[in-house]
Amino acid sequence: MSQASRAFMDRLGLSVPIVQAPMAGFQASALAIAVGGAGALGSLAGALLTPQMLRDEAKAVRAQAGRPLNVNFFCHQPAAVDEAREQAWRAALQPYYDEFGVDPRGIAAGPARLPFDDAAAAVVEELRPEVVSFHFGLPSPGLLERVRRTAAQIWSTATTVDEALWLEAHGVDAVIAQGLEAGGHRGMFLTDDITTQLGTMALVPQVVASTRLPVIAAGGIADAGGVAAALRLGAVAAQVGTAFLLCPEVTTSALHREALASEAARHTALTNLFTGRPARGIFNRLMRELGPMSDLSPVFPSAVTALMPLRAAAEKAGHADFSPLWCGQNARGARRVPAADIVRSLATMSESR
Amino acid sequence: MSQASRAFMDRLGLSVPIVQAPMAGFQASALAIAVGGAGALGSLAGALLTPQMLRDEAKAVRAQAGRPLNVNFFCHQPAAVDEAREQAWRAALQPYYDEFGVDPRGIAAGPARLPFDDAAAAVVEELRPEVVSFHFGLPSPGLLERVRRTAAQIWSTATTVDEALWLEAHGVDAVIAQGLEAGGHRGMFLTDDITTQLGTMALVPQVVASTRLPVIAAGGIADAGGVAAALRLGAVAAQVGTAFLLCPEVTTSALHREALASEAARHTALTNLFTGRPARGIFNRLMRELGPMSDLSPVFPSAVTALMPLRAAAEKAGHADFSPLWCGQNARGARRVPAADIVRSLATMSESR
Repeated sequence: MSQASRAFMDRLGLSVPIVQAPMAGFQASALAIAVGGAGALGSLAGALLTPQMLRDEAKAVRAQAGRPLNVNFFCHQPAAVDEAREQAWRAALQPYYDEFGVDPRGIAAGPARLPFDDAAAAVVEELRPEVVSFHFGLPSPGLLERVRRTAAQIWSTATTVDEALWLEAHGVDAVIAQGLEAGGHRGMFLTDDITTQLGTMALVPQVVASTRLPVIAAGGIADAGGVAAALRLGAVAAQVGTAFLLCPEVTTSALHREALASEAARHTALTNLFTGRPARGIFNRLMRELGPMSDLSPVFPSAVTALMPLRAAAEKAGHADFSPLWCGQNARGARRVPAADIVRSLATMSESR
Repeated sequence: MSQASRAFMDRLGLSVPIVQAPMAGFQASALAIAVGGAGALGSLAGALLTPQMLRDEAKAVRAQAGRPLNVNFFCHQPAAVDEAREQAWRAALQPYYDEFGVDPRGIAAGPARLPFDDAAAAVVEELRPEVVSFHFGLPSPGLLERVRRTAAQIWSTATTVDEALWLEAHGVDAVIAQGLEAGGHRGMFLTDDITTQLGTMALVPQVVASTRLPVIAAGGIADAGGVAAALRLGAVAAQVGTAFLLCPEVTTSALHREALASEAARHTALTNLFTGRPARGIFNRLMRELGPMSDLSPVFPSAVTALMPLRAAAEKAGHADFSPLWCGQNARGARRVPAADIVRSLATMSESR
């Protein structure tokens, strides 16, 4: 293990160089507590929690002595709904509405991904997590300054060398280099061209060489060999998400668990169909029939709304054809065991081999 | 270094766990000899060499004592030219023909990528390379049996777990797990859907876990940390291509070298525009204007023909707008030094760190 990795762990009080990926909609304090208890960095994902829920979950983690906490936020600019685009999207979905007998005029707004805002900053000021991490760039300077005054480390996600350089110039303390193997939303923010996205093996060493920041490697890391490989690429730690998706501490749906544990998980794709932003999930019917990346989907995050009744109807019938089955390109690490066991198996090779 | 990696090296007489990627159109014996002299496995690429050229180049490598040789072949089924598709492709290119004053009716056929055939098998029987590696699957059983009777190790490329399982079932001795970071042609052969393609960090451990074959990792590996990381993922060796593209032993064009050494190399994409099959190269004008993956391009390898005069005219004017600038996602390892120096720097960390 490098000196930089050791220093990174010491500063956060970690015993293993592993960060649990924040997974909005899938986990709260139970996972962060379990992971923290095993010596890794537990995380909460703010994007789908109300401020009060976030406060409660952060307090629950805080009640455990000596466990550092990472709270993650999306920091997109909420886009106004584009009615014409929304109508075109619903027109594209009309054959599915017909198939499931859904009247699209009756659809209520879906769960909104919330950006980091005043209320979230107030929770950070109250709970003072050791790390506040961002996805989709950084919040406004005023909000960022409020975080900085709490003495939290500020991290954000880079998917290209350009994004890493931008984040360094904007004063982050570490960068999460998110290789395109990663499940869930791409953190990309300087471009929406997915051909710019790099595999972990290519991204991490280039970010390490291009910036002076500590680099946390993410994407495709699902076992001890992957963690050790990430350190060899110059990362100070590895961020792991998909490997936790079958754990009891995670609220992955039964259909999602079934897909993760099957050969279906071998084929994922980046898709903007479910939220309007590219995110990696298991290839399913909607992706196959509309193409995983489509010009039709509304801007983030409102794409989710029009799909809600289709998802509900299909899930009721036992199919995940319209569900976002977030998953990275390496689901082999996901096992039906407590999260602490996942952390322990991830860490077995990072010291030596 | 693992026992498996050591056994792999011993069997081939290598002193470092590094394979030089065969690069059709860019290299012949000079690179293979330089790489072999530094203890790695040198390779020749048969796809753009006539049998006589291949024989001469293989003999030149064979004249060096004690250096093992890998000869690589494409094994696509040559497709008949689809006239309607070819005409549609030329229609799409018409604005460029107009811009450069080219009459597309006068275009001669471009350089053909040759599949492994009787003549190539005869060269293998004569020169008896230690390794015969394939791209795009495997040749016919009869041709494969001729290779096997020379006692050569038979390798082929897998870009998915399914392809690795197929190759194992068809009796290969090792598999090259080609992550999507890799430059040049994707070896994919069971699918033409590029969403199936995995990053090296995800592909290698899954192939290692799914087969009993030795796995050579390829894609994004450009420095000693990358080689060490590949070994940690369970690979017995790393295959490296892009890092050699600025070496004096390689025939990379001046415009290509310029692009490789610039920030342009940070953005590559998979494109089928240049040959009809997905291959990774530096993003350029043709890719930007037609989209890097297009339904318009003719089937492999005939797409190359219609572009020849545009490429020539643009290159004459100092632009690589219509040239295939093959390059992986990590060009940082490419330096203007002899290939032996690249091998030595790649190998510095693989023993220890």
